[in-house]
Amino acid sequence: MATSMELPPILMLGPPLFSHLFESRNTHRYRFLKLPSLFKPYSLFEFLETQNTHPSSIQVVLCNPLQPVTADVIRSLPSLSVIATTGSGTDHVDLSECKCRGIQVVAVGGGHECASEDIAEMALGLLIDVMWKISAGDRHVRRRRVPSTNKESFTFPLPSSPKLGGKQVGIIGLGRIGMKVAKRLESFDCIIKYHSRNKKPLVSYTFYSNVVDLASDIDVLILCCPLTEQTKYIVNKEVMLALGKDGIIVNVGRGALIDEKELVQCLIKGEIKGAGLDVFENEPNVPKELFSLDNVVLSPHVAAFTSECFTDTVIHVNL
Amino acid sequence: MATSMELPPILMLGPPLFSHLFESRNTHRYRFLKLPSLFKPYSLFEFLETQNTHPSSIQVVLCNPLQPVTADVIRSLPSLSVIATTGSGTDHVDLSECKCRGIQVVAVGGGHECASEDIAEMALGLLIDVMWKISAGDRHVRRRRVPSTNKESFTFPLPSSPKLGGKQVGIIGLGRIGMKVAKRLESFDCIIKYHSRNKKPLVSYTFYSNVVDLASDIDVLILCCPLTEQTKYIVNKEVMLALGKDGIIVNVGRGALIDEKELVQCLIKGEIKGAGLDVFENEPNVPKELFSLDNVVLSPHVAAFTSECFTDTVIHVNL
Repeated sequence: MATSMELPPILMLGPPLFSHLFESRNTHRYRFLKLPSLFKPYSLFEFLETQNTHPSSIQVVLCNPLQPVTADVIRSLPSLSVIATTGSGTDHVDLSECKCRGIQVVAVGGGHECASEDIAEMALGLLIDVMWKISAGDRHVRRRRVPSTNKESFTFPLPSSPKLGGKQVGIIGLGRIGMKVAKRLESFDCIIKYHSRNKKPLVSYTFYSNVVDLASDIDVLILCCPLTEQTKYIVNKEVMLALGKDGIIVNVGRGALIDEKELVQCLIKGEIKGAGLDVFENEPNVPKELFSLDNVVLSPHVAAFTSECFTDTVIHVNL
Repeated sequence: MATSMELPPILMLGPPLFSHLFESRNTHRYRFLKLPSLFKPYSLFEFLETQNTHPSSIQVVLCNPLQPVTADVIRSLPSLSVIATTGSGTDHVDLSECKCRGIQVVAVGGGHECASEDIAEMALGLLIDVMWKISAGDRHVRRRRVPSTNKESFTFPLPSSPKLGGKQVGIIGLGRIGMKVAKRLESFDCIIKYHSRNKKPLVSYTFYSNVVDLASDIDVLILCCPLTEQTKYIVNKEVMLALGKDGIIVNVGRGALIDEKELVQCLIKGEIKGAGLDVFENEPNVPKELFSLDNVVLSPHVAAFTSECFTDTVIHVNL
């Protein structure tokens, strides 16, 4: 049997959530080198030295979306062939460097059936939570202490029209995730509309080439598209004002799809009704103005972090 | 134009949440007498006297499920003909007294299309919230203060298998609400099983006459049935142990469907995985042991309290 030092190393940056499950199932196959964060003033070389590992022996990096994998990092690992990241995007990885080197980059989110289901579930969960104020109600119950026999204190004010059923929902990005969101919304008798780069020929939902027009016609806006130069701030102030004071936004894509400063202002001023956010523009920063609002649900970018998915992905790239 | 004292009075006990919306739309038709609570040492007669209103002029009572409408209360109102209550049950109303007197009792929940949709939405919302720990994640983000640049502190541990998709879900009570819950769960590719008084001839889901057998075969148990002598504690310790440590319970029916003391113990000991509770055995009391648990979502019985439904119901009984 191989001693652990003879096993091929895998470099884990972050490390990604749930990597421990993958790790525990594969300790007989790989040696796991866990560098907590590249943000710390700690060089990759120094770390590998403490692990008695030469940079050229690293072929695989596992990371999370909070972990920039820069050209410098990639260049320090001459044998690197796979970067697997949790999350739905790869904008934290220097893709042009990877392209030059022929390094395969795999994101758990978006590309895989399993992760897109997870993200769709999270979108529905955040939406129902915002509408029915589930998290706010839970806070209310936990905060409410004595007297427990006070019947009045048990009640909790709900918005005047919390129902999801029958609402008009606009989806930006009708790809694998967006389609799964739409399927689930249909079971709530919602009317689906969408915006994407191109009209989908096989889809009967109403297509909008213009996001402001879409926002004017819906009650709920769900963001499921990747972040690109074209989609950055696709939800700007104009879109939010078009959505209006009864409108709700759910973002399970990327933080920078929304102009976050404007979003915060719209939420504070009641220019939109509420928001469910799994992603933020400058993660891990969450605008502190949101902490006191009951019309937002704040989620620490969990949608693509499930162990089942992570394992599936890692198996998929055939480490 | 009638002065307000000439309008027929409506007695509001509680008053029920969202009654203000019904009220604001009907101030020209009715005079609303709002008694905050019958639990206070305050007699109904005294209250009506302060309102210059004779008990015999009250034909309609609107109330909420926290408000026992006892035989004494009913007897003090000789002209009473309708009691409308929010919530999905009428066990807080003395039904035998109403039957003797021919008084119509209407609950928003259960009997009406609109309310059953709301309750189904709440069931799905609580379920996804428990599975994906949305409320706990929201608490985590709001609690997390400085340093905001600490990337590690942003992450939040999720259970190893949060996905709803493909799970086996057991529904107790496949009536109007249960069927709506099932329809929505199907869009998540869940496998539905159920227990009810009788096998439904037109339903293809697997029927279980025994609740323990059902619990042994599922990942999630959702309670949508009314509270009767037969269903009290239908979820007892044996059922919870059969559901097991990966099992989740969602209760949108009545608190006393579950043996709450045993539920608390099972949650603390990890004998079941989690619970989403919109109802409690001794409302407004919520067992304080639950306040520190991250595997429960606590909701202050909101499912049937929406203004849309309340208004629909009140119109339905043709006040």
